[in-house]
Amino acid sequence: MKPYAELTKEELLALRNQLRAEYKRMQAKNLTLNMSRGNPCTEQLDLSMGMMDVMSSSSDMTCEDGTDCRNYGVLCGIPEAQELMGDMMEVPYDHLILYGNSSLNVMYDTISRSYSHGVMGNTPWCKLDKVKFLCVVPGYDRHFAITEYFGIENIPVPMLEDGPDMDLVEKLVAEDEAIKGIWCVPKYSNPSGNSYSDETVRRMARLKPAAKDFRLYWDNAYSIHHLYDHDQDNILEILAECKRAGNPDLAYKFASTSKISFPGSGVAALAASLNNLEDIKKQLKIQTIGHDKVNQLRHVRFFKDIHGMVEHMRKHANILRPKFELVENTLEEELGGLEIGTWTKPKGGYFICFWSIPGCAKKIVSYCAKAGVIMTPAGATYPGGKEPQDSTIRIAPSFPPIEDLGIAVKLFALCVKLVSVEHILEEMEKTEKA
Amino acid sequence: MKPYAELTKEELLALRNQLRAEYKRMQAKNLTLNMSRGNPCTEQLDLSMGMMDVMSSSSDMTCEDGTDCRNYGVLCGIPEAQELMGDMMEVPYDHLILYGNSSLNVMYDTISRSYSHGVMGNTPWCKLDKVKFLCVVPGYDRHFAITEYFGIENIPVPMLEDGPDMDLVEKLVAEDEAIKGIWCVPKYSNPSGNSYSDETVRRMARLKPAAKDFRLYWDNAYSIHHLYDHDQDNILEILAECKRAGNPDLAYKFASTSKISFPGSGVAALAASLNNLEDIKKQLKIQTIGHDKVNQLRHVRFFKDIHGMVEHMRKHANILRPKFELVENTLEEELGGLEIGTWTKPKGGYFICFWSIPGCAKKIVSYCAKAGVIMTPAGATYPGGKEPQDSTIRIAPSFPPIEDLGIAVKLFALCVKLVSVEHILEEMEKTEKA
Repeated sequence: MKPYAELTKEELLALRNQLRAEYKRMQAKNLTLNMSRGNPCTEQLDLSMGMMDVMSSSSDMTCEDGTDCRNYGVLCGIPEAQELMGDMMEVPYDHLILYGNSSLNVMYDTISRSYSHGVMGNTPWCKLDKVKFLCVVPGYDRHFAITEYFGIENIPVPMLEDGPDMDLVEKLVAEDEAIKGIWCVPKYSNPSGNSYSDETVRRMARLKPAAKDFRLYWDNAYSIHHLYDHDQDNILEILAECKRAGNPDLAYKFASTSKISFPGSGVAALAASLNNLEDIKKQLKIQTIGHDKVNQLRHVRFFKDIHGMVEHMRKHANILRPKFELVENTLEEELGGLEIGTWTKPKGGYFICFWSIPGCAKKIVSYCAKAGVIMTPAGATYPGGKEPQDSTIRIAPSFPPIEDLGIAVKLFALCVKLVSVEHILEEMEKTEKA
Repeated sequence: MKPYAELTKEELLALRNQLRAEYKRMQAKNLTLNMSRGNPCTEQLDLSMGMMDVMSSSSDMTCEDGTDCRNYGVLCGIPEAQELMGDMMEVPYDHLILYGNSSLNVMYDTISRSYSHGVMGNTPWCKLDKVKFLCVVPGYDRHFAITEYFGIENIPVPMLEDGPDMDLVEKLVAEDEAIKGIWCVPKYSNPSGNSYSDETVRRMARLKPAAKDFRLYWDNAYSIHHLYDHDQDNILEILAECKRAGNPDLAYKFASTSKISFPGSGVAALAASLNNLEDIKKQLKIQTIGHDKVNQLRHVRFFKDIHGMVEHMRKHANILRPKFELVENTLEEELGGLEIGTWTKPKGGYFICFWSIPGCAKKIVSYCAKAGVIMTPAGATYPGGKEPQDSTIRIAPSFPPIEDLGIAVKLFALCVKLVSVEHILEEMEKTEKA
């Protein structure tokens, strides 16, 4: 296929008519498909149904140290669950706190605590005139929403192939004391699917922030969420790296089993230095008597250990991999050589990132919607939902059944082509007029 | 028995020697018993083990409206669980939000949100010079700890037989705009066991606070936690009463199943006016995607409906009632007529409240500890752990096995007698010297 930019006006007009006719035929199918959020599909949820069998009315409900998991208490989680989550997060069991069902909630609470009480003795953010946060873009909309909700200024920092633009990050945090953190998804990043290189992680751990209470908000949401058995991304463990760099308290590391067992019914955790944990526990013991230990025990009895969890993740991969490959292959077949879009081919995580010709993303997503396919709103991967380039679209292949996904991606590719042709023609007309 | 106050010095000295000998004999038994916190006992926890059988790997995990409870979403709880909790809390299902495992956490979040973002458009508390809270005393230490943690000044208000001293409450809230709320346990109050009379509830609902963002923090922790089948306390429903009084937004009502199913693995809820709920949801949707719906569904499948829950509570009562009666009868046998203490005889809840001669509570608790029986620290039922009178002791009969409880209460009564005699003798000596 010839790149669209090389077509004549006549060729483009003919193509537009042909694509519009195709689009009308698709609209007539009355599709209702959703590729907007990274929800696991039913088949994936079924993988964890064994969790419902590991406990019965005759089960022993005590954990290793003899605690009855049904009663009150145990602020930071039962030991065997701390070990399982620690192995998953690559940190010692005593460097983490287990929480309820949502790591998002843990991140919210972390910002909220910093706002009301400050970080390790520093001024609470609510007493400061200005607080700023770095947001790696494209990134996770729910991260940005938390800091925005607390009136914090979100500053976008571009995600490059091997992680955030570290020259920019180093410069900004060194010169501005108001910058208190950076939202990071270091592995199979949401939405690019890229992972931070060793150099990026090392530079992160060696940041010299002007603010003493600056923290890396390290959301390792996809730490063991690989698509392939052998071709896997691996990143340096951030807490160890911070320690080596003489910055032991620099990072909060978040994770959960939401996309391992059940979203909404998993176990979340926060790992950090002992200094940070001590600071956090002062608040935690006021907030709660303890989180759901029965569910912690259920997870341990189902997965047994990290090996069980890794094997479980291979089953998830077997369901997700064909979906990712279908999307990538369809995009290649439909758009290859046209030079109207690029996309990532991640080795894990939940998203593929697509970049259209600048100025086309919103229109593509809206065309998809009008034909019954819901995508993540264009711009959602930027703070405030505003992307100056209007180019980034997040594709979430996990939820739809594979036959629906095939139709949805074809429609998406059709919308990309149609909107691109319309855009190129508009630009031509502007040039002609000028 | 003769009141201690009527004994001669010689009689008191003889009695002291006898009690000291008895205390030494008790110490020699090396007891290790705990009556400090309102934890359900193992037998009670066993009542809910059927919850572990209501779901298996072949279960349908969709709720009534077709939602797959294993996936993300549903911010405020699944409809059938909202109905069950609504019936328990005596509010319509759409006037509540279901949360995670802990109503304490919901209360913390409520204070935290008011602190950082304010209540329904009012100034966030963190922007005010001074915020105050009324604390009904004796009361629940964890309530007071939350407001204290946020730098809020806790103001004690005495609990009378039929609820807080309403003359004082009305006066304080009307004249001081800094007072933003009052901590209430309206039914089978912690620790007195008393319930608010209809008049108290009506006066609460009709408060005219100077602060527009004043709220009743109505922790109905023991709403269906009766000890007897027919002799039960009932209180007016506060949200309906506030509505009738033209104060629809005045109350936040909290509850959980912690002492119904499993502490730590139950379902918590907040009920309020639609205006309040709308305000709260603005924050909640930033904080989380949703709480544990599988556990919500588990509760519904186990209890079925409010009738099932009420029947379940009769089983709890059958275990708790003999323990409460044992404590009350032992106190009567050991202390009746001595005029060195009074105590409550609640019809529900988790606590009996004991009042010693002023100035003796700390010493009694410390004597108990030195003989191996841990009580709630004296003063804990007052803000900052400080009770000017040093008289109130909370007795929590639920956790120890009944045979241990018998020993523990006897020891407690012995310590009351010994400390009282020592106290009376000291006072005598002071008078003699003067």
